[in-house]
Amino acid sequence: MPMWHIYCHESLYSREDKKKFAERITKFYEKFVNLPRFYVSVIFQELPPHSFFMGGEETSDFVRIWIDHVARTTAEDGQDALMRAVNKTIDPFVHERGLRSEIHIDDTPIGLWSIQGLKPPDAMSDVEKKWIAENKPSKY
Amino acid sequence: MPMWHIYCHESLYSREDKKKFAERITKFYEKFVNLPRFYVSVIFQELPPHSFFMGGEETSDFVRIWIDHVARTTAEDGQDALMRAVNKTIDPFVHERGLRSEIHIDDTPIGLWSIQGLKPPDAMSDVEKKWIAENKPSKY
Amino acid sequence: MPMWHIYCHESLYSREDKKKFAERITKFYEKFVNLPRFYVSVIFQELPPHSFFMGGEETSDFVRIWIDHVARTTAEDGQDALMRAVNKTIDPFVHERGLRSEIHIDDTPIGLWSIQGLKPPDAMSDVEKKWIAENKPSKY
Repeated sequence: MPMWHIYCHESLYSREDKKKFAERITKFYEKFVNLPRFYVSVIFQELPPHSFFMGGEETSDFVRIWIDHVARTTAEDGQDALMRAVNKTIDPFVHERGLRSEIHIDDTPIGLWSIQGLKPPDAMSDVEKKWIAENKPSKY
Repeated sequence: MPMWHIYCHESLYSREDKKKFAERITKFYEKFVNLPRFYVSVIFQELPPHSFFMGGEETSDFVRIWIDHVARTTAEDGQDALMRAVNKTIDPFVHERGLRSEIHIDDTPIGLWSIQGLKPPDAMSDVEKKWIAENKPSKY
Repeated sequence: MPMWHIYCHESLYSREDKKKFAERITKFYEKFVNLPRFYVSVIFQELPPHSFFMGGEETSDFVRIWIDHVARTTAEDGQDALMRAVNKTIDPFVHERGLRSEIHIDDTPIGLWSIQGLKPPDAMSDVEKKWIAENKPSKY
């Protein structure tokens, strides 16, 4: 976690774009949320023509992002700040290219989460710090 | 929001079917829920053979629909009516064609939602009415 | 429900693997959770190169599983046991093959669920037993 799904027309992003976009998302969670980098999954779901509709119309200039969070839950008074930060993260690949966007994030139960079969450590615990430093999970 | 995902075998729907199906879904939210049309995303995830299983069996006559809602949360006593309305919406493309279906809807936090970087306006507010009339978001 | 999404590189699983993996998941819910087999949907979302990132890196040895549950909600004190059981279910196709994994499960509202247009029966009710025995839904 987080798990990002980026739904877009198959022509929208080059291989290089996708690499840089995923790196920018990963860095956001690394630098500002202090998560291990390997927690961040980014899945580009590039849709063929005639499969992606917004307002009943086929669309090729629209980026629909769905994010599931679990490692950190967002308190209500932090939601606006999170959405601003997420939008800033996507700006160079979306709004600055004249593309339209919609984003929504869901919070899911932290107890129903595993990595490599392990229960991830508590936020900001020593074990999490180790996972961050090593950028991989280990038994604890 | 809403975001509809329609998982089905790749042979199930023609280009024309998908256009009409997406329009019917969009009209449901426009007419009965009073949402801006552009809130409605419909994603057809057409699966190749050997990738889609129901009850352990490969299936090509099954339509699995997952919907995320945020603009309107459904109170418990409105859930049955919503599911009836959603099933009526899909009937011509699913049940009347002899296809099997399963649908589930999740409600996600309204504060974790943005369109074009903007926080969508309150339900039934003047700004939302403007967004409905113009069928696009604008700063407010 | 449950609905499993298995995100992986397109080269990871053969047709036979996917069939057996889906059967193993289905059997888990049939034997240990006592659900009708047909409640279980498994969707393999096999991603082409340059579309799937973990920690900012393209990955081909990583299996990202997202599960939506509704038929049974997991109480907090049962979450660890559920995650152990789910990991044991995937072991032969993931960890025993040296693949990396991440799993998360979300619980969604039971009232926002339908199968063939019907509201599924209460857990462990006589109707559910009939659905289990017949492995298909019927009016009640």
